[in-house]
Amino acid sequence: MDKRPIGVFDSGLGGLTAVRELRRLLPGEDIVYFGDTGRVPYGTRGSTIIRQYARQDIAFLLGRGVKLILAACGTVSSTLLPEDTAGLPVPYAGVVEPTARAAAEATRTGRIGIIGTAATIRSGSYERLLHTLRPGVSTIARACPLFVPLVENGHIAPNDAVSGLVAEEYLAPLRKAGVDTLILGCTHYPLLAGVIGQAMGPGVALIDAGREAARAVKAKLAAGSLLNEAGGGVRYYVTDSTDQFAAMADRCLDGGTHGPVEHIPIERIAAPDMAPEGRAPGGAGHFAGCGRL
Amino acid sequence: MDKRPIGVFDSGLGGLTAVRELRRLLPGEDIVYFGDTGRVPYGTRGSTIIRQYARQDIAFLLGRGVKLILAACGTVSSTLLPEDTAGLPVPYAGVVEPTARAAAEATRTGRIGIIGTAATIRSGSYERLLHTLRPGVSTIARACPLFVPLVENGHIAPNDAVSGLVAEEYLAPLRKAGVDTLILGCTHYPLLAGVIGQAMGPGVALIDAGREAARAVKAKLAAGSLLNEAGGGVRYYVTDSTDQFAAMADRCLDGGTHGPVEHIPIERIAAPDMAPEGRAPGGAGHFAGCGRL
Repeated sequence: MDKRPIGVFDSGLGGLTAVRELRRLLPGEDIVYFGDTGRVPYGTRGSTIIRQYARQDIAFLLGRGVKLILAACGTVSSTLLPEDTAGLPVPYAGVVEPTARAAAEATRTGRIGIIGTAATIRSGSYERLLHTLRPGVSTIARACPLFVPLVENGHIAPNDAVSGLVAEEYLAPLRKAGVDTLILGCTHYPLLAGVIGQAMGPGVALIDAGREAARAVKAKLAAGSLLNEAGGGVRYYVTDSTDQFAAMADRCLDGGTHGPVEHIPIERIAAPDMAPEGRAPGGAGHFAGCGRL
Repeated sequence: MDKRPIGVFDSGLGGLTAVRELRRLLPGEDIVYFGDTGRVPYGTRGSTIIRQYARQDIAFLLGRGVKLILAACGTVSSTLLPEDTAGLPVPYAGVVEPTARAAAEATRTGRIGIIGTAATIRSGSYERLLHTLRPGVSTIARACPLFVPLVENGHIAPNDAVSGLVAEEYLAPLRKAGVDTLILGCTHYPLLAGVIGQAMGPGVALIDAGREAARAVKAKLAAGSLLNEAGGGVRYYVTDSTDQFAAMADRCLDGGTHGPVEHIPIERIAAPDMAPEGRAPGGAGHFAGCGRL
């Protein structure tokens, strides 16, 4: 038993889909959620700046004394390099591996669609893993850069006309390719599941990255004897003002946020050193300075 | 005559509409453009973080030795407080005043529509000024939060279906209110002028904030004997990678960027102190530390 909280981060609201699932699976766990709403979205940006932002987000969570870190963000999970997380003092989980694994198990025809942010699709993260997990599978990937702004601006109703048109534009090629399984490779996308489901038609399994990541976290905590049944609180930290986040979070989480939302100025987040040429310094040293904020 | 460059900044691509116009009006001026593409968009964020980002952007331009600073961004122009710019060592111009003035002159019926980002509309900046400039005018304002992501993701063709649907949703109330003049209160919006013009129908004058701001800059430079006819170069600096910016900028600027695009890491931008409670320290002191970067 380990009473420290689970740390979850995302660029904005998307990671709440993982929080929702964590609270269902692990109602006794405390959770610290960090949403970098002052710099959302991540998925349209270049990989250097995404890695830099993610390393700051991780440093913040370490400063809150978490026992595990979940990058509840397809973009971060696809962009961080192994050396960015190898030196962490606590277990780290991303969304790509559990989600790809679930898709590889779910498909019957072997035709899998992948949607994600521009950065996620550019990285080829899901495809690479799918071809390893299940050789011979056929994949078709599509970047959906407007989905995150649509979610962050509240266009999440299943009959939203704008989201419907955007989904039709993005998803028609995947529907025509006859995929039977679609990876929602960004944790924002389950909030558009109604719209996406309609565009794909019946019979296509939607694999929810937030849900699969939450399951992986449960397994990881159990394996490390780190589970907690005595907690259940959530604390939210955001880098922009708390008003907008609280309102949207209430819509995204069944039954409300169940915890306080606090603003953290970006300049108070430690910025771990980035070595040039995209290589991070090895070992735990570069996160050693992260004190409790 | 003053050979120092004009400094122009925006969150992303929008300010290029002002650059385009500055190059038409003042072909002999050198221009330094700063696009905070690592943190775009600004207009969906809270006012505290917008002011903080804008002050950093200004500090960067001061470090480049500019003779005037143009906030080519409706959000920044609407959100900065007088004390944020009162202490600057060079003249400062925003887009709100010249644009409101042009609209007040253009309207025949006295019914003016205003569109802008959420932050701009929330501020009431254009309306306040319009009612002062032309008492008795009637105004109707509408936030259009998806227009910036649409532009930044390339949905700028006049027949773009998604932009068309979004424009219809946002603009129908303004068309029905019978405005004869529409302020494009965000410098991104002229890139959607085709779509916006179709949604508003013929006979509605579109007032382009970038163009009006460029005219105001010309007048300000002339009044201060600061004009230059011996230059004509443009340098661009962005906080995300240069690739995407260069490609989009080429589409937005007639005839290409005509100058190098360079990446500036956000952490290298000086962050002037912000006093608590939204009050900036007075005088020029808080920008005094901005050396040449």
